[in-house]
Amino acid sequence: MRSYPEDEVTLQPDDKPREACGVFGIFNHPEAARLTYYGLYALQHRGQESAGIACVTERGMVVHKDMGLVSEVFDHGALEQLTGTAALGHVRYSTTGSSVVANAQPLVIRYRRGAVALCHNGNLVNAGQIREELEENGSIFQTTLDTEVLAHLIARLGKNGLEEAVMRGMQVIQGGYAFGIMTENSLMGLRDSNGIRPLAIGRLGDAWVLSSESCAFDTIGAEMVREVNPGELVVIDANGLRAVQAVPAKRRALCVFEYIYFARPDSNLDGLNVHAVRKELGRQLAREAPVAADIVIGVPDSSISAATGFAEQARIPYEMGLIKNRYIGRTFIQPSQKVRQAGVRLKLNALRKVLQGKRVVLVDDSLVRGTTSGHIVKLLRDVGAREVHLRISSPPYRFACYYGIDTSTNGELIAARMSVAEICRQVGADSLAFLSAAGLLRATGRSEGQHCLACFSGEYVVDVHGNTGKFALEG
Amino acid sequence: MRSYPEDEVTLQPDDKPREACGVFGIFNHPEAARLTYYGLYALQHRGQESAGIACVTERGMVVHKDMGLVSEVFDHGALEQLTGTAALGHVRYSTTGSSVVANAQPLVIRYRRGAVALCHNGNLVNAGQIREELEENGSIFQTTLDTEVLAHLIARLGKNGLEEAVMRGMQVIQGGYAFGIMTENSLMGLRDSNGIRPLAIGRLGDAWVLSSESCAFDTIGAEMVREVNPGELVVIDANGLRAVQAVPAKRRALCVFEYIYFARPDSNLDGLNVHAVRKELGRQLAREAPVAADIVIGVPDSSISAATGFAEQARIPYEMGLIKNRYIGRTFIQPSQKVRQAGVRLKLNALRKVLQGKRVVLVDDSLVRGTTSGHIVKLLRDVGAREVHLRISSPPYRFACYYGIDTSTNGELIAARMSVAEICRQVGADSLAFLSAAGLLRATGRSEGQHCLACFSGEYVVDVHGNTGKFALEG
Amino acid sequence: MRSYPEDEVTLQPDDKPREACGVFGIFNHPEAARLTYYGLYALQHRGQESAGIACVTERGMVVHKDMGLVSEVFDHGALEQLTGTAALGHVRYSTTGSSVVANAQPLVIRYRRGAVALCHNGNLVNAGQIREELEENGSIFQTTLDTEVLAHLIARLGKNGLEEAVMRGMQVIQGGYAFGIMTENSLMGLRDSNGIRPLAIGRLGDAWVLSSESCAFDTIGAEMVREVNPGELVVIDANGLRAVQAVPAKRRALCVFEYIYFARPDSNLDGLNVHAVRKELGRQLAREAPVAADIVIGVPDSSISAATGFAEQARIPYEMGLIKNRYIGRTFIQPSQKVRQAGVRLKLNALRKVLQGKRVVLVDDSLVRGTTSGHIVKLLRDVGAREVHLRISSPPYRFACYYGIDTSTNGELIAARMSVAEICRQVGADSLAFLSAAGLLRATGRSEGQHCLACFSGEYVVDVHGNTGKFALEG
Amino acid sequence: MRSYPEDEVTLQPDDKPREACGVFGIFNHPEAARLTYYGLYALQHRGQESAGIACVTERGMVVHKDMGLVSEVFDHGALEQLTGTAALGHVRYSTTGSSVVANAQPLVIRYRRGAVALCHNGNLVNAGQIREELEENGSIFQTTLDTEVLAHLIARLGKNGLEEAVMRGMQVIQGGYAFGIMTENSLMGLRDSNGIRPLAIGRLGDAWVLSSESCAFDTIGAEMVREVNPGELVVIDANGLRAVQAVPAKRRALCVFEYIYFARPDSNLDGLNVHAVRKELGRQLAREAPVAADIVIGVPDSSISAATGFAEQARIPYEMGLIKNRYIGRTFIQPSQKVRQAGVRLKLNALRKVLQGKRVVLVDDSLVRGTTSGHIVKLLRDVGAREVHLRISSPPYRFACYYGIDTSTNGELIAARMSVAEICRQVGADSLAFLSAAGLLRATGRSEGQHCLACFSGEYVVDVHGNTGKFALEG
Repeated sequence: MRSYPEDEVTLQPDDKPREACGVFGIFNHPEAARLTYYGLYALQHRGQESAGIACVTERGMVVHKDMGLVSEVFDHGALEQLTGTAALGHVRYSTTGSSVVANAQPLVIRYRRGAVALCHNGNLVNAGQIREELEENGSIFQTTLDTEVLAHLIARLGKNGLEEAVMRGMQVIQGGYAFGIMTENSLMGLRDSNGIRPLAIGRLGDAWVLSSESCAFDTIGAEMVREVNPGELVVIDANGLRAVQAVPAKRRALCVFEYIYFARPDSNLDGLNVHAVRKELGRQLAREAPVAADIVIGVPDSSISAATGFAEQARIPYEMGLIKNRYIGRTFIQPSQKVRQAGVRLKLNALRKVLQGKRVVLVDDSLVRGTTSGHIVKLLRDVGAREVHLRISSPPYRFACYYGIDTSTNGELIAARMSVAEICRQVGADSLAFLSAAGLLRATGRSEGQHCLACFSGEYVVDVHGNTGKFALEG
Repeated sequence: MRSYPEDEVTLQPDDKPREACGVFGIFNHPEAARLTYYGLYALQHRGQESAGIACVTERGMVVHKDMGLVSEVFDHGALEQLTGTAALGHVRYSTTGSSVVANAQPLVIRYRRGAVALCHNGNLVNAGQIREELEENGSIFQTTLDTEVLAHLIARLGKNGLEEAVMRGMQVIQGGYAFGIMTENSLMGLRDSNGIRPLAIGRLGDAWVLSSESCAFDTIGAEMVREVNPGELVVIDANGLRAVQAVPAKRRALCVFEYIYFARPDSNLDGLNVHAVRKELGRQLAREAPVAADIVIGVPDSSISAATGFAEQARIPYEMGLIKNRYIGRTFIQPSQKVRQAGVRLKLNALRKVLQGKRVVLVDDSLVRGTTSGHIVKLLRDVGAREVHLRISSPPYRFACYYGIDTSTNGELIAARMSVAEICRQVGADSLAFLSAAGLLRATGRSEGQHCLACFSGEYVVDVHGNTGKFALEG
Repeated sequence: MRSYPEDEVTLQPDDKPREACGVFGIFNHPEAARLTYYGLYALQHRGQESAGIACVTERGMVVHKDMGLVSEVFDHGALEQLTGTAALGHVRYSTTGSSVVANAQPLVIRYRRGAVALCHNGNLVNAGQIREELEENGSIFQTTLDTEVLAHLIARLGKNGLEEAVMRGMQVIQGGYAFGIMTENSLMGLRDSNGIRPLAIGRLGDAWVLSSESCAFDTIGAEMVREVNPGELVVIDANGLRAVQAVPAKRRALCVFEYIYFARPDSNLDGLNVHAVRKELGRQLAREAPVAADIVIGVPDSSISAATGFAEQARIPYEMGLIKNRYIGRTFIQPSQKVRQAGVRLKLNALRKVLQGKRVVLVDDSLVRGTTSGHIVKLLRDVGAREVHLRISSPPYRFACYYGIDTSTNGELIAARMSVAEICRQVGADSLAFLSAAGLLRATGRSEGQHCLACFSGEYVVDVHGNTGKFALEG
Repeated sequence: MRSYPEDEVTLQPDDKPREACGVFGIFNHPEAARLTYYGLYALQHRGQESAGIACVTERGMVVHKDMGLVSEVFDHGALEQLTGTAALGHVRYSTTGSSVVANAQPLVIRYRRGAVALCHNGNLVNAGQIREELEENGSIFQTTLDTEVLAHLIARLGKNGLEEAVMRGMQVIQGGYAFGIMTENSLMGLRDSNGIRPLAIGRLGDAWVLSSESCAFDTIGAEMVREVNPGELVVIDANGLRAVQAVPAKRRALCVFEYIYFARPDSNLDGLNVHAVRKELGRQLAREAPVAADIVIGVPDSSISAATGFAEQARIPYEMGLIKNRYIGRTFIQPSQKVRQAGVRLKLNALRKVLQGKRVVLVDDSLVRGTTSGHIVKLLRDVGAREVHLRISSPPYRFACYYGIDTSTNGELIAARMSVAEICRQVGADSLAFLSAAGLLRATGRSEGQHCLACFSGEYVVDVHGNTGKFALEG
């Protein structure tokens, strides 16, 4: 726990929604921890505040976790301690106020049937209610994690074994979630009944692998087998893999922001390549909101795919107009008031020779509070861009997410407060257009029910009040 | 979590029993955390593997804890975060296999009535049984601490408020213990029904203080008020301090090793100054086991008091015969086989000019495995001591402690396996004598029932099987 | 100084030549150190092993430097110590065997006229000879830096003031170099007589700035004024800036690799934007070595500009075919033999959906040992690329650089040992072509004498033996 | 380089003069670095701000040094790099303003005949003058160490080999000094012509050892051979050890403070055991300044020897009246104004049960500024001491040292400004007496010329202006 003087703050995050977590597990491999370490490297974009790996060693279940990047948390000595043929790992963003090591995952607990490690990506909408009821019945909580809620449920409901306990737990929890669970002799993966948060199954020789994204399979040389289905519980043990439909699947409604921004371009989700979808989002955007311009540029790194799609469709040359400084660490000393001008171009610089005198289409994948966009538009004008037309390859972000994405509250969402025209004025662009929801669906080739679009439409696929009545604690 | 190459091991501890912990709390002081920080400095000898402080800040209860010494765990930034007028702190030795940050204290939990911080010194003999029963009823454990057992009990039994919950918890747990407990608006101290582990109450202006030893009161300028009584629960809140006899006091049987070795010489326990008791132990030893000699020396630092007592009683000059290197850190690179001779005098050196040709009485306060004593006797002979008469200012340590002291198992206790004559031969002394149990009691001026002497007599004041029947979990 | 177990090695660098250093200085600004800190962030790509800033404070000249990235070396406390209105900073790659903190820069020395800080980018071909002569005359060396050679020369030749001393020093040293020098009341910049290594002058309000690249001016909001000319010494003090032609300019022969690979795309060097040049290199390559293909991809990040140029010229769609993992730290635990397959896609992954069944043009900016190229070609084939045509946007790298670039020795340069056809077989490509030297010059629009092309042509603009006869040490 | 917020300061040192350094070297031992590491542990009391070891490895001369204690600077990995059969090590206090890693020793330089490592304990009175002359002739300095002055002299004067160069250097430098010098094939030790700073020769099997104090010989199991003589240069190489009288010995005038305070009690210097001398100082003090009292106590740790001597001579019981907290780290967060009372007893606590109602003789070994003494006297009174008689086992410290001891300037020396009676009032004692200079000499059994007593008498054995005329730089 380190405290910073006022101006040595963690660098302001981009104006992007933040994914909560990445989960990776492997069963039946002699180098389980090391492969998990590589798998977490591949998922690092999903969470950069803490990292951890649990293993079943001859000393029992051990976990090594700490605040920081995978490269900071693990060294040779730490990995050497993590022996055994099964491992479960996690990378995590913190949400406000809980950025403490106690909240790092995997969460390892001991209950009547031994040790269990849990990792979670997502959010339980009825966590508070379950927690209250558990506390009413004498449970104590040591973290602020939803993960601990499921841990308690499993312990309470686990009289007939862990598998049944997990199934019964899944019947209680509601929200958007994917969990990896490791016991002393099994590895499990489970996904909410709408399939909001992703989780996939892979195979590496005799080993089974679970991962939030398929890019981690590529990284370790594993084959993608399939996604875990909505409401499904997958159990891997010495007998191999078996799957149970623990709760009925409601629909297959993957969070569309995985395509828009979160996932790595080289991952495939529900059969679609992320980069390809983004490019198609750009194409669709070009169809919906064309503009006469000289060049198209994207905000690095996440909007490059969409920008090239826009450029191709619009037949306007794609150009590299912005350069991102890749060395800015997480603790970065902010410019003081006196040298405030230094701040603007530290993280992003604009190429005058590319932009000067040009009519520019600036493609960004999303716009949450609008602050960064305003800065970039100004940056482009400063180096001489004649016109700046901002194109957002997703619809206006108007509603807070309750399924595992950390956005501002509704009040901070610029699109919840302003019209498109007002936002355009606010960010100082010559024109502004968002992709339509229909266009978004066209790009993924899916129907309305096949994605969670709550942040755009306000139609929450799971009741956000999570009021589910008393659940049976007596197990 | 760092792993060391083979020969960069933690320096072998002295051949001494190890105290488990130190507890310090303060209520109603604007600089609560800072005073706790100083208090923990004063209690650092009771535990050097982890340190922590919890506070009730305007952000709720926060805790800062980590592996290491107080000076390593806390810096200016950490202390600044610990605001509020109440604080609870802890220093800790780890016991085998559990030297991990998750086991650092205070343990902070959330239960139905809010957040609670717990600190513990001692051992619960029925922890395993309680834990099993709790797990049977669905509790999950995240540490291997007895502290967590009490936390669960409080949560389970706490329907009518924390105070009653703690009292009911005290009726369940058995062993030698002292706990400090902090809620969002109170500070509590409690002690086992035999008063085996120490805990005292102090006063600093309008603030109340709890501490394992009185030296911490001196350190912050507080006055000692009294000890917490055996079986007593002391509750400090906005209304001041009130005390409840939570469980009947069986007797007042302080662990006698607090006087012999653990406590700081400047602490007073149950009305006796530790240094004065140690000196009297030395005097009594001189009466019981006199020997013709030229000088008396003590093993620094803990045996100096007893050695001077012996010297005064025996009218043999006390001398400084051994010098301790105070700079040897906890991670110390051991001499390799090739330079093994270097190891002997690294930590302790003998003064040839003082010892050469002399008949030496070597006073040590205890002898557990006998390894260090053998080294020191050899060291004295190497610099020319003519005779070495080893005198131990406590009885033979024959029985493992179950009330919070980390000793070897019975099998490793040399006095459990060998006669005094055999030990004498083993360590290479010219003569060897231990203080008698009767002499020990004479030195403290107490009767047999007024101390826990289990490690010498095998008469355990609390049943070590801890079989207490089912306790009422329904609260 | 930490030593690593065998498999926790620093990640293998890409198969790229390595720039030695970046230099940044500022004079007459109240936030000199902080702006230098931001300037070094902008130059971090030029050196990632050590960083340092020197300042003239009221306590005299102080320096803070250490191994690591700018973000690791400087924290709030360190910056606060660096007061004063002038600062000189440096980032550095180490060359083999000298990766020690003693070799971090700025080098601060005290000589008869006070303290001087020196920073260097480049290499002196006659450093060994000068050093020998200095040692013969009683000088002692504490580092293995060429920088220390100039420091000694200045001290020896400095009877009539520092400016004359530096000029006389420039008459002695030979090679490719740019130095920043700060005294207690001035800041100087100097560049070798062929202008091989870059150095530019900027202006920020009343302050003057020096930087290896113009991107650092953008970062702090400064204006580019001009390049330091070949052989020129620029002196900035309370009277402003004045320039002296310290040694005759031979030609203006910037290291062409600055354009090809080293410099940031958003920097302008000698009037040309780096990204624009790279794109033109790609265009020219497409003209010289066209190929029938379905897509063009570049190796991220440095070859993206050239790849888009190639694609535009060839009218083949540019695609994102490779994804780079941005989180791989400098100490990275390598895959063991058992999981070797994991290593291939850790740092770079290929997009199967983009590449499968395609005829691919793979553009890379340079090819030194050829190892990485082989891996990438295989990676593309593994995901189903039908054909892979490797195009290198620079000529074959055949001759070692002696002017500040750390390449392999000639023997390790694959193009020095093999024909293009042999390299093509070696890397497993379907075809391979390098840009011609003439094409390279056409892209920068310069004649043969206007670049240092030694690594391609073997025509060294400065005699690499550096045999310059005795120089006058008596000053 | 870390900067601390205002109240997290390095703990105020005791009111003691500070020794500058400790030197340890070994030649011809397969575990040279490891034994040097242990030797430095034994010398750690002579310097605690930086530590370093240089070795001649197959990669040439390497050095590992950093700020911090030996235990902090060296870990297993660092020691493993330090191979070879010769090593030279150093521990160091910084003097004001130069507490930077650049000033850590050994200083390793390269000159015309190869690499040389130098370590220094002491101070050169003509360093400034030599440095000026060297700079006038073109030398550059990278540290503020006197060590670097000798390094330059050696390089300048070394035409006929290092041994002659060192001898000629010794003819130039003046002051109180001991140097250890290691070349690629030899180890040298040298001592000033008055023998002010100590240096001894030891033997371990076939290896030769040099050490500032003999306690380091004990630590590694080596035998003391003899002291290096005043003005002597000892050269150890493959041919064994040979000694040269490099400059005429003026006298044998060891700094008497080595006995009074600096050296470890178990060291022998010039044939006398330090503890024995201190005890005799106490005895002599009791003879000179007797007082009717109940107990004698000493200030731990350094004054315990003298206190027991006083007690024995005066036939007053010696008691343990003060307890020192051994866990207070070097960075310690000071009590704020609000809790100032906490500070008094943090580092030292007084035993009320021992002191209450007693007439106390408080023995301290020296009194420099008097601040600490005042605090201790008050502390004793606070716990009820009836009378406090302060006895200092050395004469009044009136004159600044120029031979390697870091004291306050004359103005801060309380004895330079006040009479004994005034000091007594100032510190609040009932009586105060210092040992006489004659008594001091009686205790060591030496005549006036056989010690440096400058700090008591003002008679400086070496001219402190160090004006020695031009020395011949041309070598």
